[in-house]
Amino acid sequence: MISNNNKKCVIAVDAMGSDNSPHNDVIGAYNAWTKFKSFELLLVGDKNEILKVASQNNLNIPEDWIVHAPEKILMSDTPTTAIKTKKNSSIVIGASLVKEKKADAFVSAGNTGAMLTASTLIMGRIPGVGRPTIGASFPNQLGSFTLVFDAGASVDSKPQHLLEYSAMGTIFCKEIYGVANPSVGLLSVGEEESKGNELTFATNKLLKESKLNYIGNVEGRDILNGAVNVVVCDGFVGNIILKFGESVIGFLKAKMRTVAEGSLLDKIKVLIAKGALRKALSDLDYQKHGGVPLLGVNGISIIGHGSSTPLAIENMILRAKEMYDKNVISKFEEAIKDYAVK
Amino acid sequence: MISNNNKKCVIAVDAMGSDNSPHNDVIGAYNAWTKFKSFELLLVGDKNEILKVASQNNLNIPEDWIVHAPEKILMSDTPTTAIKTKKNSSIVIGASLVKEKKADAFVSAGNTGAMLTASTLIMGRIPGVGRPTIGASFPNQLGSFTLVFDAGASVDSKPQHLLEYSAMGTIFCKEIYGVANPSVGLLSVGEEESKGNELTFATNKLLKESKLNYIGNVEGRDILNGAVNVVVCDGFVGNIILKFGESVIGFLKAKMRTVAEGSLLDKIKVLIAKGALRKALSDLDYQKHGGVPLLGVNGISIIGHGSSTPLAIENMILRAKEMYDKNVISKFEEAIKDYAVK
Repeated sequence: MISNNNKKCVIAVDAMGSDNSPHNDVIGAYNAWTKFKSFELLLVGDKNEILKVASQNNLNIPEDWIVHAPEKILMSDTPTTAIKTKKNSSIVIGASLVKEKKADAFVSAGNTGAMLTASTLIMGRIPGVGRPTIGASFPNQLGSFTLVFDAGASVDSKPQHLLEYSAMGTIFCKEIYGVANPSVGLLSVGEEESKGNELTFATNKLLKESKLNYIGNVEGRDILNGAVNVVVCDGFVGNIILKFGESVIGFLKAKMRTVAEGSLLDKIKVLIAKGALRKALSDLDYQKHGGVPLLGVNGISIIGHGSSTPLAIENMILRAKEMYDKNVISKFEEAIKDYAVK
Repeated sequence: MISNNNKKCVIAVDAMGSDNSPHNDVIGAYNAWTKFKSFELLLVGDKNEILKVASQNNLNIPEDWIVHAPEKILMSDTPTTAIKTKKNSSIVIGASLVKEKKADAFVSAGNTGAMLTASTLIMGRIPGVGRPTIGASFPNQLGSFTLVFDAGASVDSKPQHLLEYSAMGTIFCKEIYGVANPSVGLLSVGEEESKGNELTFATNKLLKESKLNYIGNVEGRDILNGAVNVVVCDGFVGNIILKFGESVIGFLKAKMRTVAEGSLLDKIKVLIAKGALRKALSDLDYQKHGGVPLLGVNGISIIGHGSSTPLAIENMILRAKEMYDKNVISKFEEAIKDYAVK
């Protein structure tokens, strides 16, 4: 358990993670460090490649920041196989650094499945957690965020897993988003208790018996409406909504381009509209959120998009630092015990 | 089977369906009729109330257009109970008109579950169809539409049901959207065949063995991207995405309002942006789509939002007429037989 907040936080960053690695990963990590300097940075990846990026971009990266990892898990690799066969990959070594307490957090924009598998198998699960969960934060109408668990860590979840997601989600929302008594909603096809599927009916019973601030079923619209702080669902549904949500910006841009192809007046309107729209949509930009945390593993693990920019990497590191500072991991174990039953 | 296209199409409209019934329903139906006159209109509902709306709005509605239905199924009613106990409700009578071949289509903005249950139990299912399905059309980046089946008719579907949805979705897309050889994608958590849950793994096998133009897994983002013409999924997921999608407009409006609260320049930008944004988002407006069709029942059944405006009702009627003209229902039976196996 990482709870020694007297020592300086050590954050290991996968230098080989993003689609544009190691460039985006190294620059993002370096930017985070130069801005805040309140943590020690480890860059996990091919030493020569990292040093090349450092030299090309005039980054002052000492060699002892680099943990050499000559292998790379590709986006196309099968996670479980890759974890077993590529022992010298940045993802396996990064997760091992946390396991061995040489790092407090590991951050990667690499293969999501491999990060999930490595974090779960190498760091291990927090006692009482059956399955780790990924949390996604959606901006809502109220100007705050709705957290969705599980956003894709696993599918075909059991009711007990959804109860665990709810407990961890509650703690995460409390500690990281500062909500005093986060409300929890069960994602379903109607607000009434009679609406749902086999999984929600069984989960509803468990949630009602728990100590969580559970308000019952919520619907698809309630995520952006901000009806609750934490929305709980199986990772199959959560992942599909997350990806659907991410595609809204591209859709709107395409639609605005089409409008701009109309009259000259339309073109001018769209030009002027762009700034306003950009501001309005800025909360939807995944780069701002800094990846998604994997909760339930015995350490801080943050997973980013393959398309992460340096800014996205930087924000992932800040999120890891925040989780360290607020001692979130050690609070989960207590929460699982405390919240799960009345 | 409704296939006699020599006689004039008869469309029964639930006058008591919408939240603002019978006003919106009667006006929408009357508008559709005065615009096109290519069908016979039946208004199912409380006779006095319908005549009152007619007189207040100067609508020339002959009494023989009205099928008196003194009972009303409320939004809060439990569908199966309501169908059994309110035999004189507009929904039960409307569905019965189709069953008795006194109408070719029934259109309602009332209780969705009651419409589903009444259509399925009273009209009956098309031979070979295990479960009826609701189709939702999402605008996509390509300027066309992506159809999603099932958008909420039933949950905990079996692989065979998803195969049926795919076959009916293909016919619907071909006939109503004019796509020659519609592509079908299975909604999952990754494009690779290895990504998915128990349902998608088993469904993938069936779809690969079918004669459908099946391209494999698609992801949440592919709906708005327009990667395929028809997306197939369980109704639990489909319903949640549909409602999430519908909430995007409200979310954007709220965000734009927030931007307008900023500087004067922002306020002006938002004012100018509104028109462009309205155009860009107009395809997302569910009122334009005219409700969702329930496919797989032995007749044309169109289900609308409780919040349907007269325009939404009008478009629901046009969609019903189109399905009648294109003889879609009789093509489903053939499709189920023909597409389901190689």
